Amino acid sequence: MVKVGIIGAGRIGRVHITSISTKVKNAQIKTVADPFLNEETAAWAKSMGVENTTKDYMEIINDPEIDAVLICSSTDTHSPISIQAIQAGKHVFCEKPIDHDVAKIREVIAALEGTKVKYQVGFNRRFDHSFSAAQQAVAAGKIGKPEIIKITSRDPEPPTPEYVKVSGGMFLDMTIHDFDMARFLAGCDATEVYVQAANLVDPAIGEAGDVDTAVITLQMENGAIAVIDNCRKAVYGYDQRAEVFGSEGMVAISNDCQSTAVISNAQGVTGEKPLFFFLERYMDAYAKEIEEFISAIENDTDTPLGVEDGLKPVLMGIAAKKSYEEHRPVKLSEIME
Amino acid sequence: MVKVGIIGAGRIGRVHITSISTKVKNAQIKTVADPFLNEETAAWAKSMGVENTTKDYMEIINDPEIDAVLICSSTDTHSPISIQAIQAGKHVFCEKPIDHDVAKIREVIAALEGTKVKYQVGFNRRFDHSFSAAQQAVAAGKIGKPEIIKITSRDPEPPTPEYVKVSGGMFLDMTIHDFDMARFLAGCDATEVYVQAANLVDPAIGEAGDVDTAVITLQMENGAIAVIDNCRKAVYGYDQRAEVFGSEGMVAISNDCQSTAVISNAQGVTGEKPLFFFLERYMDAYAKEIEEFISAIENDTDTPLGVEDGLKPVLMGIAAKKSYEEHRPVKLSEIME
Amino acid sequence: MVKVGIIGAGRIGRVHITSISTKVKNAQIKTVADPFLNEETAAWAKSMGVENTTKDYMEIINDPEIDAVLICSSTDTHSPISIQAIQAGKHVFCEKPIDHDVAKIREVIAALEGTKVKYQVGFNRRFDHSFSAAQQAVAAGKIGKPEIIKITSRDPEPPTPEYVKVSGGMFLDMTIHDFDMARFLAGCDATEVYVQAANLVDPAIGEAGDVDTAVITLQMENGAIAVIDNCRKAVYGYDQRAEVFGSEGMVAISNDCQSTAVISNAQGVTGEKPLFFFLERYMDAYAKEIEEFISAIENDTDTPLGVEDGLKPVLMGIAAKKSYEEHRPVKLSEIME
Amino acid sequence: MVKVGIIGAGRIGRVHITSISTKVKNAQIKTVADPFLNEETAAWAKSMGVENTTKDYMEIINDPEIDAVLICSSTDTHSPISIQAIQAGKHVFCEKPIDHDVAKIREVIAALEGTKVKYQVGFNRRFDHSFSAAQQAVAAGKIGKPEIIKITSRDPEPPTPEYVKVSGGMFLDMTIHDFDMARFLAGCDATEVYVQAANLVDPAIGEAGDVDTAVITLQMENGAIAVIDNCRKAVYGYDQRAEVFGSEGMVAISNDCQSTAVISNAQGVTGEKPLFFFLERYMDAYAKEIEEFISAIENDTDTPLGVEDGLKPVLMGIAAKKSYEEHRPVKLSEIME
Repeated sequence: MVKVGIIGAGRIGRVHITSISTKVKNAQIKTVADPFLNEETAAWAKSMGVENTTKDYMEIINDPEIDAVLICSSTDTHSPISIQAIQAGKHVFCEKPIDHDVAKIREVIAALEGTKVKYQVGFNRRFDHSFSAAQQAVAAGKIGKPEIIKITSRDPEPPTPEYVKVSGGMFLDMTIHDFDMARFLAGCDATEVYVQAANLVDPAIGEAGDVDTAVITLQMENGAIAVIDNCRKAVYGYDQRAEVFGSEGMVAISNDCQSTAVISNAQGVTGEKPLFFFLERYMDAYAKEIEEFISAIENDTDTPLGVEDGLKPVLMGIAAKKSYEEHRPVKLSEIME
Repeated sequence: MVKVGIIGAGRIGRVHITSISTKVKNAQIKTVADPFLNEETAAWAKSMGVENTTKDYMEIINDPEIDAVLICSSTDTHSPISIQAIQAGKHVFCEKPIDHDVAKIREVIAALEGTKVKYQVGFNRRFDHSFSAAQQAVAAGKIGKPEIIKITSRDPEPPTPEYVKVSGGMFLDMTIHDFDMARFLAGCDATEVYVQAANLVDPAIGEAGDVDTAVITLQMENGAIAVIDNCRKAVYGYDQRAEVFGSEGMVAISNDCQSTAVISNAQGVTGEKPLFFFLERYMDAYAKEIEEFISAIENDTDTPLGVEDGLKPVLMGIAAKKSYEEHRPVKLSEIME
Repeated sequence: MVKVGIIGAGRIGRVHITSISTKVKNAQIKTVADPFLNEETAAWAKSMGVENTTKDYMEIINDPEIDAVLICSSTDTHSPISIQAIQAGKHVFCEKPIDHDVAKIREVIAALEGTKVKYQVGFNRRFDHSFSAAQQAVAAGKIGKPEIIKITSRDPEPPTPEYVKVSGGMFLDMTIHDFDMARFLAGCDATEVYVQAANLVDPAIGEAGDVDTAVITLQMENGAIAVIDNCRKAVYGYDQRAEVFGSEGMVAISNDCQSTAVISNAQGVTGEKPLFFFLERYMDAYAKEIEEFISAIENDTDTPLGVEDGLKPVLMGIAAKKSYEEHRPVKLSEIME
Repeated sequence: MVKVGIIGAGRIGRVHITSISTKVKNAQIKTVADPFLNEETAAWAKSMGVENTTKDYMEIINDPEIDAVLICSSTDTHSPISIQAIQAGKHVFCEKPIDHDVAKIREVIAALEGTKVKYQVGFNRRFDHSFSAAQQAVAAGKIGKPEIIKITSRDPEPPTPEYVKVSGGMFLDMTIHDFDMARFLAGCDATEVYVQAANLVDPAIGEAGDVDTAVITLQMENGAIAVIDNCRKAVYGYDQRAEVFGSEGMVAISNDCQSTAVISNAQGVTGEKPLFFFLERYMDAYAKEIEEFISAIENDTDTPLGVEDGLKPVLMGIAAKKSYEEHRPVKLSEIME
């Protein structure tokens, strides 16, 4: 039984508390820490079987009984808390992104060197039933050599302009998942990024200095070309699809729906919309990524998504931003220098 | 918090133990009783948070702390244990069928009279995301007045001849779910049954005195005609679909798959097979039916599936058997006499 | 080049004139005969390349240049004209049904004996791209031994009560196509019919002595059970589907639509309705059946649907009527006596 | 009745001869001209109802009885023959592309000025049942303001290196259809093109100086971003899909198949591959574009695809080539200068 501390009890923290409590075997949440902890949250955590709640995450870092830490706090705290946890010998599961600043991610990488700490980054979509089936088909050679990879990723509703301002921009906040997915599906890194983007959904997003609609082309190391299309608003719900086309075939995945019910009437043949948001679509994936993290600890194996997998999509996001600003293809090597 | 005792720790008992432990709020399993309880089962139950295990189900019946009983034991014990539990003032969730013998079900009905006991029968498919979406479409009038109801229900693998002998026959063992579904989708009872059946899958099933393939026509009270097709073996997996056609349209539901991945290659365009068996397909439905049972207890409302809903499909199963044997349409009123 | 005469220029006659003129190679329409021929029809026929039009079909029967006759006149004339054409040595393509009266069909069979006349019955659905693909899958053994055959056949709009009165009843007018399809998909004859039917769509149909909704169970000679569901009105269009389930798998076919366009919006994910009626759905099948008729003439091979294939569905329709009237399963052997 | 002359009896010429003969009303082919005309072709043309065949296309240009000319000859002859036909007062249907040289297209535009000649370019896909349904949905406002347009266009088999050498390159030979489709779906012109391309299918194509795989991003005038993905080889057949995403929803179209048959067995649930090539997929579209051309002549209306619609995709193809060579986004205005 792995004893876990969870730092941050916001939306994503609660997702992990819920799924560990109800679905993840061999893990037990000892402590939940959140600087804004109130009575309601504490009571809810207790009802989920959490032993202890606190405002001070150092209680978790300093608790010798705790084996592993989940970092679900605000993005700017991910890298310093990662380093504290590593130094305390805790295994770390860190929500994405590790940081928007490459230097800070490199500090985490340095802190890990020579330790036996397991480090995993929270790119949950890799654990989705359909995305993982697509990746397995590719990895098993069922479509031959990948040539074109297409990822559609559209949110049901745009963020507030306030959120946009602190988000790091769409490429580091939203597309970062798709950058990870492109690496996952291709089985290799990207070498170049080109962005065509616009502010079409909400003028306030543009005023906040960001875009909300984009088509992003990636040159992958293995020769394949990947293309991501993003929009901050899809009226029909959370649109998360992918397609990998190769020399011997294609694998494509589509959205999940609440039911398979289809109604035929005088207006047409109508099925359900995609599940509305990431909590519905990826609830099982959130549980699965923690199961694999716990399993890596128990069996002393590599985590499925190491710290380098946290770094690469950030580099891609920075390259995307630069491509948009300078309106030209940008090589990843420019960013890594 | 409703305290629950579970009688029977076989396959279906374990399904309920798992789903209550991991998914059903406001319910807690105090005791699990099984005459064949061994150390492995007891240890597993403990790991799922069960307080107590025993070989003697009377410990549950006699425990004043226990509010509700789940009867997951062998079919012949359903009605006597139901009556004991009712007399002890426990709410009862009874796996289907209550009994193969109508007289014994009537004894349960009699025992319930004048009590405040909540009684629910385990027709789990009503709680499936897709079947319930179809029923809601019908109930909401989206297809007008129902005219034709079609239910496909095929198992991935046939039972053993030993099981067949004690099963009560396919109509009471397998079709019983579909009889309930016909009532659920139509929103009314059947008045007549006609069966065309055969032994096509396995000669041993025929030797055991049963059929394995059938098309069953039902006249429903509201004028609609329902038709069920059953087979004990579908090589592609558990096939559970339905379609309700009415004066203003049609609602149809199809199978669930492990993923949405579709591979296109020189051989064709291939998606996944349906989920292989009822545990995969209906796991969420099993949790949902218990949630509704617990909710009916907590809010003192009717259960969604009362004891009469347990009786009717048994009557239909008996009528089906008679129809097959006498090769003629059989009215339900013949059986009820 | 086969010279053809067409008797009857009503709806179905015009379908054949159009498809022979525009799609069928090696056939040329010399004469069209219709007792109600007017100037408009004659002009239209000319525009389609027809050489000659007449009110008297005997001009066709007596024309030594004409090789083959298409009988598209009213049902009661099918068998006498068939016999006249056979006696004149013309090959005959006869629209379904040959007759509602079995004795008259037997007269046609007698007339054919000892001649070299090719005779084909117009069950066009066998030539539909999807129904024929399903049959080929079955015939190629791709689903193993057939066990359950399901045919859905629903019209978009009910006929007028006037038509109903002269139609021979739904089983001989509408279901007859599905009876043929059951034989085609099963690869054998039916031995017994059971009907559950009702008048749900339009009371006027009931007043005209007919039903409009039915579920029809067939015992097939090879052990499979077939079930047909019919309705005279489906608000979403012409619903023509089938499924053959067997020991090694299932083949299913669905409807054709005007386009593959699917619109996702806040209301759902909506595709097009099925093509609205048989002229849209089966236009290519109408051409294909004539192509095969012409090919049988040119190559002196059997037609794909001989006179016996015209008789059997009529027997099934008569058995269905009897089953409905006597509310019991009816063996085909009862009708054949 | 419009009298037509067809110049060029190669693959595409034969498509038009066939569809005019069998499907297009109000048009009659008087003469077919082809410099390589042989007896077989002449005989075939006669069998299709063509009055006259010749090696000299000037017989068509000079024939006062001929109203309209279809130019189906080799690409380098399109613009000069267009000008000759225009000067002779013939209406012109010209296969795509009018020319690879913008100056030559401008000469055709100049020749048209002041005449009453109808000119139509052969972008057949606009007349496909599904692409046109998608465009109509967009034009009818069903998806709101277009934001992202995605076009997939993959051929089943790569061309020979010999063909590649004279093709003008993939962008002018293959992508040109997709450039037209982007304009059609967006309802406006592109302003900028960026290409990421590679030689992945066949090294011989690279040796012939061309690419075979590409992702092409287009900035559209109305703010939408379009992306085309191309490959010269898809093992599963001709892959022609599109999706338009907008502020109020999305319309998506998929491939056509030979039938709707789906086989479920132990291996999976398998439907048919897309129709294998453009002749199967677009046969009806080829007839429809000519019908509209004939209709424009008869009713003296604009053709659906004028000479400017022939010019624009060529400009986009040239910009794409430049983008690939210079590895940067290229504005259309650079090419138009």
